[in-house]
Amino acid sequence: MNKEALVNLSGKEVRKLIRKGEWLNDTMGVAEGFTQANLAIVPKNVALEFMIFCQRNPKPCPVLDVTEPGSPVPALLAPNADLTTDLPKYRVFKNGEVIDEPSDITKYWRDDLVAFLIGCAATFDHGLMKAGVPVRFIEDQCSPAMYITNVNCIPSGPFSGNLVVSMRPIPHHLVVKAVQLTSRFPGVHGSPIQIGYAENIGIKDLDKVDFGGPLRIEPNEVPVFWACGVTPQVAALNAKLDLMITHYPGFTFVSDCRDEKFAVI
Amino acid sequence: MNKEALVNLSGKEVRKLIRKGEWLNDTMGVAEGFTQANLAIVPKNVALEFMIFCQRNPKPCPVLDVTEPGSPVPALLAPNADLTTDLPKYRVFKNGEVIDEPSDITKYWRDDLVAFLIGCAATFDHGLMKAGVPVRFIEDQCSPAMYITNVNCIPSGPFSGNLVVSMRPIPHHLVVKAVQLTSRFPGVHGSPIQIGYAENIGIKDLDKVDFGGPLRIEPNEVPVFWACGVTPQVAALNAKLDLMITHYPGFTFVSDCRDEKFAVI
Repeated sequence: MNKEALVNLSGKEVRKLIRKGEWLNDTMGVAEGFTQANLAIVPKNVALEFMIFCQRNPKPCPVLDVTEPGSPVPALLAPNADLTTDLPKYRVFKNGEVIDEPSDITKYWRDDLVAFLIGCAATFDHGLMKAGVPVRFIEDQCSPAMYITNVNCIPSGPFSGNLVVSMRPIPHHLVVKAVQLTSRFPGVHGSPIQIGYAENIGIKDLDKVDFGGPLRIEPNEVPVFWACGVTPQVAALNAKLDLMITHYPGFTFVSDCRDEKFAVI
Repeated sequence: MNKEALVNLSGKEVRKLIRKGEWLNDTMGVAEGFTQANLAIVPKNVALEFMIFCQRNPKPCPVLDVTEPGSPVPALLAPNADLTTDLPKYRVFKNGEVIDEPSDITKYWRDDLVAFLIGCAATFDHGLMKAGVPVRFIEDQCSPAMYITNVNCIPSGPFSGNLVVSMRPIPHHLVVKAVQLTSRFPGVHGSPIQIGYAENIGIKDLDKVDFGGPLRIEPNEVPVFWACGVTPQVAALNAKLDLMITHYPGFTFVSDCRDEKFAVI
């Protein structure tokens, strides 16, 4: 199946294909306009501390939905979804090490697990493009560029770590527009955290990414940095939990909600 | 001590007076421009479910700070404060019944308690007034008018209940401005949930308030309703916890943060 066939489907239709095993590739650009979310599943005995970590670091960790302990159903974002089967690829960690990258996590599910769905910048990427602000990794059909900064997150319980950011090269005359557009969406990382000065947040070389791939930056463009949903995953890995399950990078959860639902104005 | 002496103090200065027992009255209008917050303290064994209740109902329950379990220090809002002594009056509940209304809760504190500070509309009341939108209960020096609506909150664990709203009479020509101004502050209830049609949310008689007191409404004014921080208290009372402590209505926590910190744009 070609990804182009998935662009105009609804979130529910895409999830059905994923659940049947007919789409096991990445979700970038599918179900255009439907909110995508990052996944982090942790045991209940640390779920409060993880949720407090998210509250203390709302720009990288905007919580969109939390399941009932033991339930894989995200009732707010997609009440008919099942988080154990509806993502195309997962990562399973034990004590901070990847032990599996399956397309179904039914066999790992436990009654004490709590799933968090965390806002993903895909929501505002679509808004930027509609407003004429280019989004390079979509234009070039490659991976977003992500960096671990020297900015410390505020810790909570066993969760701590540095802020991870994604970078978008924005033409000078559209930088303010990009700030305005993304400010409307505090639920999906919101406004940028740094405009132009990579070294100010500890990034020495834009070609050396920590996740994803480097991006082409044109002479008339400024690198703009937004808090990234990889941050809570890094914090959770640092915590070396006995079990943690996340989405595989780029293989996110596609919800029933329209992006505009999360706009505050 | 007269309240007028407290208007131009900082949050820290007001808390010092409260801690020394020199101000044990309400906090409405004190430390102008400093963010005030509602308090809800619950045992750790239900804290995750309470925090999920707040996430599911963000308009009435915007969480501004959560303490480490067992610690009374709100590190984000006021790292030098002590939530057991720094509010002028508390309410202590056992199994949903008020058992005490002290000005200090040191003797009730336990190592398993978690304190939540929840956004309070006082933050945007100040913004409304500065922009020329009258706030009746401040003008008339009386209590805000609050109503229990027929809107169900989304439950979580033992927490459930109806949405409580506060009402402000707004002149017709300023209603849109009031929506715009309060939309900037999703962290303190944000935009209104109903403009004008009280019966649409189950309020039959504006003179019959459930909390506070009724307000004068002029012929050129529209009743506008905002989600209210009493909502999570009602939900927590419905849960009949073995111990729960809240602020006494109108006697809120005064933080070190400036209101504008919570503006998203």
